[in-house]
Amino acid sequence: MKKHNFGAGPCILPKEVFTKASQAIIDFDNSGLSILEISHRSEAFVNVMERARSLALELLGLKNKGYHALFLQGGASFQFVMVAYNLLEKKAGYLNTGRWAHNAIKEARNFGEVFELASSANKNYNYIPEIKTIPTDLDYIHLTSNNTVVGTQMQSFPETNVPLVIDMSSDIYSRNIDYTAFDLIYAGAQKNIGPAGTTLVIVKEELLGKVSRTIPSMLDYQVLIDKKSMFNTPPVFSVYTSMLNLEWLKNQGGIQAIEKQNKAKAELLYAEIDRNPLFEATVPYKKDRSMMNATFKIKNSDLESRFAELANEAGVHGIKGHRSVGGYRASMYNALPLSSVEVLVSVMQELEKLS
Amino acid sequence: MKKHNFGAGPCILPKEVFTKASQAIIDFDNSGLSILEISHRSEAFVNVMERARSLALELLGLKNKGYHALFLQGGASFQFVMVAYNLLEKKAGYLNTGRWAHNAIKEARNFGEVFELASSANKNYNYIPEIKTIPTDLDYIHLTSNNTVVGTQMQSFPETNVPLVIDMSSDIYSRNIDYTAFDLIYAGAQKNIGPAGTTLVIVKEELLGKVSRTIPSMLDYQVLIDKKSMFNTPPVFSVYTSMLNLEWLKNQGGIQAIEKQNKAKAELLYAEIDRNPLFEATVPYKKDRSMMNATFKIKNSDLESRFAELANEAGVHGIKGHRSVGGYRASMYNALPLSSVEVLVSVMQELEKLS
Repeated sequence: MKKHNFGAGPCILPKEVFTKASQAIIDFDNSGLSILEISHRSEAFVNVMERARSLALELLGLKNKGYHALFLQGGASFQFVMVAYNLLEKKAGYLNTGRWAHNAIKEARNFGEVFELASSANKNYNYIPEIKTIPTDLDYIHLTSNNTVVGTQMQSFPETNVPLVIDMSSDIYSRNIDYTAFDLIYAGAQKNIGPAGTTLVIVKEELLGKVSRTIPSMLDYQVLIDKKSMFNTPPVFSVYTSMLNLEWLKNQGGIQAIEKQNKAKAELLYAEIDRNPLFEATVPYKKDRSMMNATFKIKNSDLESRFAELANEAGVHGIKGHRSVGGYRASMYNALPLSSVEVLVSVMQELEKLS
Repeated sequence: MKKHNFGAGPCILPKEVFTKASQAIIDFDNSGLSILEISHRSEAFVNVMERARSLALELLGLKNKGYHALFLQGGASFQFVMVAYNLLEKKAGYLNTGRWAHNAIKEARNFGEVFELASSANKNYNYIPEIKTIPTDLDYIHLTSNNTVVGTQMQSFPETNVPLVIDMSSDIYSRNIDYTAFDLIYAGAQKNIGPAGTTLVIVKEELLGKVSRTIPSMLDYQVLIDKKSMFNTPPVFSVYTSMLNLEWLKNQGGIQAIEKQNKAKAELLYAEIDRNPLFEATVPYKKDRSMMNATFKIKNSDLESRFAELANEAGVHGIKGHRSVGGYRASMYNALPLSSVEVLVSVMQELEKLS
């Protein structure tokens, strides 16, 4: 039976990406070799890396604007460290919007002073807090655009001369915003970029070279830029599959087209959450709700096991909420079709009829 | 035509590993989901990670001996940094046996004093230098067991009370030595472990907690041990495929059995290099020659293009030497069959007949 994969990540990717990636493991590009056994210095793979780096910028409208794209390793959690290592000389401003923002703050404190611009920790992060003032002496501001755990998403970003660094792990390539507003964007691949195992970093070169500490080579953005994201053996398969997925997105019409689909999916689900008397949204303020991760609860917990049964029978997978929040979380990343959301909505309506 | 892949890495893996990995991308373990879209917190993947960690120790004879196995990201180059971050308080001893050892020294110097125990840099690293004395005040000694670029390999290891840290990226799981001699072993996966994108670290817990600096979470072995190698999203596919490859090795009879095969392959090739009047070994001292990477040259460079043609016609792939050494390098990792070495030897003999 077809599974409807609402998992929060690593998440669903397009079927054609799975098919091509699977084939490349047997025979990459009619080379007679597996993608897993080719040299990362071969012309074939250098072309893959360069195509992936180029698509990464092109799809965000960042080509020829002073940005470099890097496919690194270690996940967003490693970027919490690298950002501070490369950019934090004295003081940085962090917006505390969730579990991952909190972790980013924790790691940055090893390298300098962290000023918390605003926080929604008082309500278990179920809203996006307002930044009232921005100190002028910040090295950078760090934001988290989408908070996967609770399901909130930033709709606007500070207008300031302070460089903006943003963790977009769970909503990059999902919506059409002005990406030139940011000086450094990073994202673990395992949502809208590709499989787990690589992390996209997009950085404006002019941001670098301003801290006084010595940076180890593997953590130095400038070294990694100079080596074209190949300082050492890259995660070949993850980069290749990310390239396939970015090509798929381009063929869909890019972020303009996918945003329309993502909006339609989110509107359909949130409308049902708000309409159906059995359910309530975890994020009360509509403006703060994530288009990627919709969180909700069943008001009467007695109905939970019946809901689980119905969801399971319909092939709905991965809607259990994060343990710190409870309830349900339906993640609707780029590759999830509208038809999967329709199935989930019909399950919610079936529960209503039965109860 | 069948390719004989002598590439230095990422390298050949067993055909059954390619087949299973390819299948898991379409449908992992009859779950109806791709291995690329399952949660790393799912029971299915936690089992994969634990199986991989367990096999990693078991195959080296390190189970229940105080060691932990971690599947991390970033390659051996990132371990150059992590080792020093976690272990270098004042002074460490490094054996300078090649390009990668040299890089490890460079990164360690950011964290403390490096004492060079011995070096073969004077002869472009074509031998393993002898350690004459070991200072008693070293935090640890760092070795590189096999030097992929020039093709040398350590046959014995210092006997000392100083903790031994060893980069075994290119020969772990290839030979039957006493792995309990080491306190920390690391290896980029892309030779005998699995595909690029993960790095195995095997560390004795008692080695940790002795430096005074604050270690960022992502670089702290103790944190990663406590989180069972799942501090954040691991490189799911690379870990899964590494597990498949370690299972394959176990089914082959483990390192005892594979060592026999590796010896047979190396003996066959080195015998031909030494016998065939057209060729000469790059590493003059037989005792220092690597069982994994055999390097050699054609004495008369006029024959090189003919040799390239013959090799290509026979399906021999990836024998070009590293640019810093020139000539040829035939890498004979675990999954390379003896029959591939026989093909290479027959090409060398054909060149001899024609010239």
